[in-house]
Amino acid sequence: MGKENGFVEEITNIDENFAQWYTDIVLKAELADYTDTKGCVAIRPYGYAIWENIQKYADAEFKKTGVKNVSFPMLIPESLLQKEKDHVEGFAPEVAWVTEAGGQELDEKLCIRPTSETIISTMYSKWLNSWRDLPFVYNQWCSVLRWEKETRPFLRSREFLWQEGHTIHETAKEAKERTIQMLNIYADLIENVLAMPVLKGQKTESEKFSGADFTYTVESLMHDGRALQSGTSHYFGQRFSKPFNIKFQNREGKEEYAYQTSWGISTRLIGAIIMAHGDNRGLKLPPKIAPIQAVIVPVAAHKEGVLEAANALFEKLNGNFRMKLDDRDQYSPGYKFNDWEMRGVPVRIELGPRDIENNKCVVVRRDTSEKIEVSLDEIQEKLATILEDIQTNMFNMCKENVERRTTIAKTMEEFKHNLEVNQGYVKAMWCGSAECEDKIREETGAKSRCIPFEQEHLSDVCVCCGKPAGKMVFWGRQY
Amino acid sequence: MGKENGFVEEITNIDENFAQWYTDIVLKAELADYTDTKGCVAIRPYGYAIWENIQKYADAEFKKTGVKNVSFPMLIPESLLQKEKDHVEGFAPEVAWVTEAGGQELDEKLCIRPTSETIISTMYSKWLNSWRDLPFVYNQWCSVLRWEKETRPFLRSREFLWQEGHTIHETAKEAKERTIQMLNIYADLIENVLAMPVLKGQKTESEKFSGADFTYTVESLMHDGRALQSGTSHYFGQRFSKPFNIKFQNREGKEEYAYQTSWGISTRLIGAIIMAHGDNRGLKLPPKIAPIQAVIVPVAAHKEGVLEAANALFEKLNGNFRMKLDDRDQYSPGYKFNDWEMRGVPVRIELGPRDIENNKCVVVRRDTSEKIEVSLDEIQEKLATILEDIQTNMFNMCKENVERRTTIAKTMEEFKHNLEVNQGYVKAMWCGSAECEDKIREETGAKSRCIPFEQEHLSDVCVCCGKPAGKMVFWGRQY
Repeated sequence: MGKENGFVEEITNIDENFAQWYTDIVLKAELADYTDTKGCVAIRPYGYAIWENIQKYADAEFKKTGVKNVSFPMLIPESLLQKEKDHVEGFAPEVAWVTEAGGQELDEKLCIRPTSETIISTMYSKWLNSWRDLPFVYNQWCSVLRWEKETRPFLRSREFLWQEGHTIHETAKEAKERTIQMLNIYADLIENVLAMPVLKGQKTESEKFSGADFTYTVESLMHDGRALQSGTSHYFGQRFSKPFNIKFQNREGKEEYAYQTSWGISTRLIGAIIMAHGDNRGLKLPPKIAPIQAVIVPVAAHKEGVLEAANALFEKLNGNFRMKLDDRDQYSPGYKFNDWEMRGVPVRIELGPRDIENNKCVVVRRDTSEKIEVSLDEIQEKLATILEDIQTNMFNMCKENVERRTTIAKTMEEFKHNLEVNQGYVKAMWCGSAECEDKIREETGAKSRCIPFEQEHLSDVCVCCGKPAGKMVFWGRQY
Repeated sequence: MGKENGFVEEITNIDENFAQWYTDIVLKAELADYTDTKGCVAIRPYGYAIWENIQKYADAEFKKTGVKNVSFPMLIPESLLQKEKDHVEGFAPEVAWVTEAGGQELDEKLCIRPTSETIISTMYSKWLNSWRDLPFVYNQWCSVLRWEKETRPFLRSREFLWQEGHTIHETAKEAKERTIQMLNIYADLIENVLAMPVLKGQKTESEKFSGADFTYTVESLMHDGRALQSGTSHYFGQRFSKPFNIKFQNREGKEEYAYQTSWGISTRLIGAIIMAHGDNRGLKLPPKIAPIQAVIVPVAAHKEGVLEAANALFEKLNGNFRMKLDDRDQYSPGYKFNDWEMRGVPVRIELGPRDIENNKCVVVRRDTSEKIEVSLDEIQEKLATILEDIQTNMFNMCKENVERRTTIAKTMEEFKHNLEVNQGYVKAMWCGSAECEDKIREETGAKSRCIPFEQEHLSDVCVCCGKPAGKMVFWGRQY
């Protein structure tokens, strides 16, 4: 295909070097860039606009369930971080410490929040009196910092943007229901907006959040068959409420410690979108999240009436769709076609003199490359239908990848073989021991993704040790 | 007034101790609270909802002018901060330093951004090539940290939320126009949404932003007559673009350094709202920014049909207005009246059995305490009108305060006298020297607020030194 030159040949082949392909997309589609602050990226307008669309959707869904937004300090005194034993063990090694400020050494050093359970718990303790005050269902959109050794834009950045919801409840039952409710919002966002099928389940003891009773997760599978933890929802029981003294007078007039949850999604999701949908032509964005849903590229723009018609079409569609008119005069239409394909815009609309004569335009789908002639009188309705169809098709393409890469293993031989051939998810029975998890990871590179809510009975015994096994687990190598 | 007990008597009298009154409002209206991180507050749901309304309005206005949102790292390497001489002198003394991270001492310490000119300038240098790329008109909503010695919630917090816009342009003219454009958006927000008149002008050399060529400001006046800098817009010329090497090939094919601006508003505005509008009954929120515009308080809620009618009224109005139904059964209506007045809700709707019988409700205005009987058939339209009227009246009340407290001084005697009697703004001629500014501050406690765009010729000589003076300046004590 003659037009696939220019930008496109600069992108590494997706099947030859997926990691480099990913970096190429991040930089060339201008989603993010490396900065002088090692391990931290700048998110550029096009990347940030994706995040804003995620925020807009998620925030509205949160609020429908009674979530209220708040803001807590980014700095946490060392003594606070240390109050919950498992939590500090999990997070202390990877925090950044402020030791000097305002020209002086601090008496007590302050960490930049890696997550905010501790500082929020102290405030909940202060604010809570009676069961009548409950629940607190608060969330903050902010950034957190974790001093990772190896970083990659969006996937594992030292600083990343996220939302962290923190709730306390009168009963364990209500708190547990909230963890599921939020997990379902995440699953819905990822499936219906980001067009990626998710796997829902519970993390094993080894993989749960530091300080949680249990952790629910939604996992997605990338183009290369590796898994990505895309959102988590934690139930703490009273693990924080006891050391942090979050108690209330219950309906019987007695003191009781509150039941707590937290849940989060982050800019990792942008990494997931790139890696689940992209191809050799570049980024491919689901219409519901794309900052630009359709770009109009005038053809032979120097000819009389073309730019005017392109402008008129833009005005007609903008508002109903997120539109862009590419009227740059220093680039050829061919260059622009490649450029917008690389940037993942779901639909390109070509409009030239002959189209205008015939009162039509040419709509080109990013997902299938299909070219569709559409009358200018019908473009409004047709574009809506085409975008919906792209959204559905992208989900289905992703789903096919997941199904193709999901296998069953009843022996370790099968397990290793499947991963070598397929990457992807391996379903296998598990006895429940951390030893078997460790051994599987050492031998295959795969971690447990989760104990899925939808269980299947594959056999009676653990794939690793052969002892009785009650649970089926999804396993996979991960990002 | 018998019902004014309960909450109300706990609030310090506004005219006896304004500072304590302010703190009482912040805590009792549950806008924010002190945390274990000294000098940093937690913004509670009710306070954060005000910020969200400010964000929503400002962000939409920004975007209409082509602003795009982005995210830059919160940590800035020391070497970067030091690249612009005046800038580092202004900010270095009040930054917080990260010196350890991931279990190790850092080779180069990193400051938590006090503002982001430096880190953003390095990226602009990387991204800019040609005049065709310009302008960059980017903004981020984030928090920044400045290690203030004395802090007060919202007004002067070590960490505060803000937006910082950073732009680069092809010409000085375009950049200067952008600073005015953004200042006008701030003025419009503060006057038309927050219902406070603003004073627009240019900061003197002593009061401008560290590193700027000049700074424009919008100033507001608080209930007690002190001024508050409410938003600023800076023109940098090439002061950053030269040390940071932000250059482009211009239309003549030559290299040129870009022309730069930055501009910001912060959660200080919440402090301004409290202090400009509040009274002895508590907070008073302009309808356009109030998280709850009208609260329905059922009277004799135990009687048959009352709660149902209150619920029906809520359902009817919610969606068109930001509504709250207070159906708490542990409080009396009188307690609720005080409670919602203290929280500044613009309108209270009382609904009791006799109202229901007569197909009406009683609307009580927070600003005037006026009680208005409204037919339930007309409540939709009447409520809209009443809220608009409250918005206008609150602006006018504020404006009267500013006018009453704005005086002219032609001598230092008058200057001191006016401030003693009135606080407020003193208008006086100024010779332009920093010495006179210093002397005026020492003798009166007032700083220059700004050189207003609307100049008046009060006399030919400086109020302080008696030398020729070409500029009229607004002066005032400040927050």
